Amino acid sequence: MTTSRGPYAKSARVRAAAVEAAAELFGTAGYRGATFKDVATKIGMTAAGLTYYFPDKDALLAAVLDERDRPAVAEEAALASSGTRADITERVMRILSENIAQPGLAELHCVLSAEATSAEHPAHEHFQDRYRKARDLLTDTFEAAVARGEIRSSVPPKTLATLLLSVMDGVQLQWLLDPEEVDMPATVRTFISDLLAPPEAP
Amino acid sequence: MTTSRGPYAKSARVRAAAVEAAAELFGTAGYRGATFKDVATKIGMTAAGLTYYFPDKDALLAAVLDERDRPAVAEEAALASSGTRADITERVMRILSENIAQPGLAELHCVLSAEATSAEHPAHEHFQDRYRKARDLLTDTFEAAVARGEIRSSVPPKTLATLLLSVMDGVQLQWLLDPEEVDMPATVRTFISDLLAPPEAP
Repeated sequence: MTTSRGPYAKSARVRAAAVEAAAELFGTAGYRGATFKDVATKIGMTAAGLTYYFPDKDALLAAVLDERDRPAVAEEAALASSGTRADITERVMRILSENIAQPGLAELHCVLSAEATSAEHPAHEHFQDRYRKARDLLTDTFEAAVARGEIRSSVPPKTLATLLLSVMDGVQLQWLLDPEEVDMPATVRTFISDLLAPPEAP
Repeated sequence: MTTSRGPYAKSARVRAAAVEAAAELFGTAGYRGATFKDVATKIGMTAAGLTYYFPDKDALLAAVLDERDRPAVAEEAALASSGTRADITERVMRILSENIAQPGLAELHCVLSAEATSAEHPAHEHFQDRYRKARDLLTDTFEAAVARGEIRSSVPPKTLATLLLSVMDGVQLQWLLDPEEVDMPATVRTFISDLLAPPEAP
């Protein structure tokens, strides 16, 4: 329950503004390029003032990541229970459209996930967990689609899940490096049509 | 022609040692984590002394990247002219084995290529160029294999090239984050078997 007044409401507003500012700055300048003070300045605070809400840049990072992931995780959970081939394709194409519209956030994901491969990175567990959950949800989705006879079963569902996430990340890397040369939606769509193909006609 | 003595030979030796040390340090501490001075210290020089051979860390980075890529580019050129499905599979599996044996270098590639999506990064053009060349060579390879009837032609060769590179990068990211959970060779091999499948029997 959020009340619209009082110290709790102010705290929630400041936190939300700081997370939005951090997401924008991390998306343009990168996590390492943006400072804690930059985030504070953007919302008209001092760095000391912002530490009342977030102790440091890592805490901002964690909040940005949670905020970004919340809608995606809910949608993926829904997909897992009833996702048809068309649903999966539509969901993936929508993610790509969002990334094309906000290349700064796409780059943020690309850089943070790569940096986070290091066990010491503050987002290491976040990304490990995020990919595990995404693989598990997609595996369930593909298992259900195979069981319904919608996609052929020559490739194990868990491998399909790992591959779909890999293709999305890998094509995005090439697209970020060279947007004129790489047609991200067409490439990913081809992968989905081919690898998530319906069973051969009997 | 390299002579074994004289100032030129010493210069070549120092350069080679510095590039090796930089590759190792960038692979363990990351490009941003390792300093120019760390590289100098590792080969028993001062930072000022090393500037005689390399003006700065970016120059070391460029040399490391060139050094790493040289054998790969030559092999890929050979693949493009005569690569059969078996050759392509073997070459890809060999790259994966090398990366499993040297996770530090795999992580270096992962982090540098992601950082380099930013147009201001010193390796931006290097990675843009590297991916263009890799796509072109693999496209030629796949075109030739389709023409010989070795792989089916439902997916355009350029798309296959982009997808294969994407799968290698994307699966590697998940493997670096979670080596216990992600079987990199098996996943990539499944992709190759399925997407580079021979034509259907007539």
